[in-house]
Amino acid sequence: MIPFADLALNIPETRKPRVVIIGGGFGGINLAKKLRGKNFQVVMFDKQNYHGFWPLLYQVATAGLEPDAIAEPLRKLFGSDNYEDFHFRLVKVKSVNPVTKIVHTLVGDLKYDYLVIATGTKTNYFGNDQIKKFSFPLKQIPDALNLRSQMLQCFEQASMTPDPETQQSLMNFVIVGGGPTGVELAGALAEMKRHVLPSDYPGVNINKMNIYLVEGMDRLLPPMSKESSEKTYKYLKHLGVNVTLNTLVESYDGEVAVLKNGDRIHTNTLIWAAGVAGALIDGLPPETVERGRILVNEYNQVLGYPEVFAIGDIALMKTDKWPKGHPGVAQPAIQQGQLLGKNLVRLQRNEPLQPFEYTDKGSLAIIGRNQAVADLPGNMHFGGFIAWAIWLFVHVMALVGFRNKLVVLSNWVYKFFTYENGTRLIIRPFVRKGDRAKQRFVDQYNTD
Amino acid sequence: MIPFADLALNIPETRKPRVVIIGGGFGGINLAKKLRGKNFQVVMFDKQNYHGFWPLLYQVATAGLEPDAIAEPLRKLFGSDNYEDFHFRLVKVKSVNPVTKIVHTLVGDLKYDYLVIATGTKTNYFGNDQIKKFSFPLKQIPDALNLRSQMLQCFEQASMTPDPETQQSLMNFVIVGGGPTGVELAGALAEMKRHVLPSDYPGVNINKMNIYLVEGMDRLLPPMSKESSEKTYKYLKHLGVNVTLNTLVESYDGEVAVLKNGDRIHTNTLIWAAGVAGALIDGLPPETVERGRILVNEYNQVLGYPEVFAIGDIALMKTDKWPKGHPGVAQPAIQQGQLLGKNLVRLQRNEPLQPFEYTDKGSLAIIGRNQAVADLPGNMHFGGFIAWAIWLFVHVMALVGFRNKLVVLSNWVYKFFTYENGTRLIIRPFVRKGDRAKQRFVDQYNTD
Repeated sequence: MIPFADLALNIPETRKPRVVIIGGGFGGINLAKKLRGKNFQVVMFDKQNYHGFWPLLYQVATAGLEPDAIAEPLRKLFGSDNYEDFHFRLVKVKSVNPVTKIVHTLVGDLKYDYLVIATGTKTNYFGNDQIKKFSFPLKQIPDALNLRSQMLQCFEQASMTPDPETQQSLMNFVIVGGGPTGVELAGALAEMKRHVLPSDYPGVNINKMNIYLVEGMDRLLPPMSKESSEKTYKYLKHLGVNVTLNTLVESYDGEVAVLKNGDRIHTNTLIWAAGVAGALIDGLPPETVERGRILVNEYNQVLGYPEVFAIGDIALMKTDKWPKGHPGVAQPAIQQGQLLGKNLVRLQRNEPLQPFEYTDKGSLAIIGRNQAVADLPGNMHFGGFIAWAIWLFVHVMALVGFRNKLVVLSNWVYKFFTYENGTRLIIRPFVRKGDRAKQRFVDQYNTD
Repeated sequence: MIPFADLALNIPETRKPRVVIIGGGFGGINLAKKLRGKNFQVVMFDKQNYHGFWPLLYQVATAGLEPDAIAEPLRKLFGSDNYEDFHFRLVKVKSVNPVTKIVHTLVGDLKYDYLVIATGTKTNYFGNDQIKKFSFPLKQIPDALNLRSQMLQCFEQASMTPDPETQQSLMNFVIVGGGPTGVELAGALAEMKRHVLPSDYPGVNINKMNIYLVEGMDRLLPPMSKESSEKTYKYLKHLGVNVTLNTLVESYDGEVAVLKNGDRIHTNTLIWAAGVAGALIDGLPPETVERGRILVNEYNQVLGYPEVFAIGDIALMKTDKWPKGHPGVAQPAIQQGQLLGKNLVRLQRNEPLQPFEYTDKGSLAIIGRNQAVADLPGNMHFGGFIAWAIWLFVHVMALVGFRNKLVVLSNWVYKFFTYENGTRLIIRPFVRKGDRAKQRFVDQYNTD
């Protein structure tokens, strides 16, 4: 590869107003779609070359799906044969300057007429570097592949250890965080314990496998209804998951997880799904940032800079109905992206902007085979198979590409009838810089 | 993970004869299938936890398929619900001792009654460490994911480089080796140049993309018929591939490939598909090894050790019809594995062994959309669409799992009608130990 310093962004000069979108997540792609054919030059920056359908990421981690089923290349979504004057660049943004209206990236600078920050969130370790070093996050596709390989390797090693305590540690899985990711992961692991692992690892006593789910609040899925939280708790208990509420994980040194309630769990695998923080970009003045998110008005405009917008998880729009901002799920990002697309057109025409109003379409979480919880508008709460069917339908329909829908649906049908997770392949993704602890595990198996 | 030194193989003691199979490739799995229910304890060692359908590996490299489409977990193939007393262990074998009848692995030793070496081949750099360091092999799934990411990143960078020479180097792809891997990869890349990349990279002049295929012999696909070689050459030329015959690549420093004919090609991507060598295991006496393969008699027995067998690519069985051994493709391995399964049963019953006779079912290579070459038994040679249809049918049918067949077929149908390679995701696999040059490229994009 060529060093970034020798590259240039190479965005063609244009007379059209230039919209720079940072981030190809739900907000970014829905905005870009709305701007198609609307007399803008659209530039999108992302560190990844794909849009990920993150609600299904835990499926990649539990060997249910391969990455291509939940991700779609951004250049495929906005190919030149259907989108004129769209320019994707695989770069990391360093900072923005809202005064000079310039975005600074690792390969050069670009002037914008409108800037949209749609960078979403990143894993939040709350400053605990030890947990950051030893735990497994579940935020990106390489994380999911890494976690999948880790879990399978733990079982491979469990089948080869003569020491009962070591084996127990390999078969203890601690999930920190009872939000959707933690709950869905715990459910999927419990299903694997029931239907897949006993046949795969006959030499291992599957009853020794423990799945711990640790949540700091007094209920699971805190953003959902109390009814759904209770159902979720009941389902997970029924599946054999050890749920601990009102407790934090205080430390993890790669061997022992210490909980605030005094419990100590020996484990080789601690999955950190306990929180996210806004993926902020340098350059905005401090008064525009609150609790790691960018303060915006009802038009998603950043305080003091009418041509700078933030949408999705990174944006904090306080309204009467949502005084702490909208929930960090796909729908607000999608709806804000769509509305901003329309509002940019209005801005160009000097028409008044339309304020954002969130349409809550409900929340869903899947817990296991046939089990899900759903909070639908109108205070309706479903559980069990009906919720599961709704979950499946909504998620398959929301998947981006025609092809992905097919892949996911056929995988689901296959799993439903065979109880099989198909893709139990140990394939390690890249190891992050400085992540020597994990690098060692990888090298151990690649001494070729 | 637990250090190997603290692990043990944990294979249960048994009164049945113990067959140890090293390698879960075509030979190993076909042997294991035949031994099911036949009063043996079967132990399989592999460094990977899956069986790969390697004829389709180039499809993973060119974003046509994801790994799960071409690989099947070995524990799923031989799960305890359908195979009693089968034991898979994810370990690396260090050496064997045919005198004491012990296999030495990184996690311990195991005594065998019958030993089957089915380790296949590894990439052969013919001692050129520089090429080993800078080139991209295509032998394992991580190789394919790495190459896919490399090719896509070259295009990402080509869209951002202000220097025409740098851009040309990013858009030159040199494939060394005109065997099936090289030919199929060149064809797939040429199809991407035609149907996928122009829309993905509108800012890049696609005419600058060059695909070089360099072969040392005087024709492509040397093991196939002259007719097929000529058709292949014609098809590839028609697709715009620069084919050079009778030439070797002498050096590659990561920037310039120097050919023996004096040509110098500036390229960021040199793919090494020029040769394989047997993946030998220490411990067999030198007289049993010839040109990197293990000499076996017509029963696949290793000279001097009637209870040690070698099958597939690692075995060298010289016969009148095949004085240099059988071709290094799937069929000899499959057939030898199946026959050895029967012969081990005969050995137990003190019945005479049946000698191996290779049934040549023909060879196939795919070159592009609708284009393939086929040599079928009876001196029949096909080209064009018919060969392509045969190729597709044979390969889909030969895929291991029911699910994989479905995944591959639906991908193919999708690609056929849309000209789309679906999985153009840049996801880096692990970086091999000591591979600092490549690690740097990875880190550049992961400075999180």
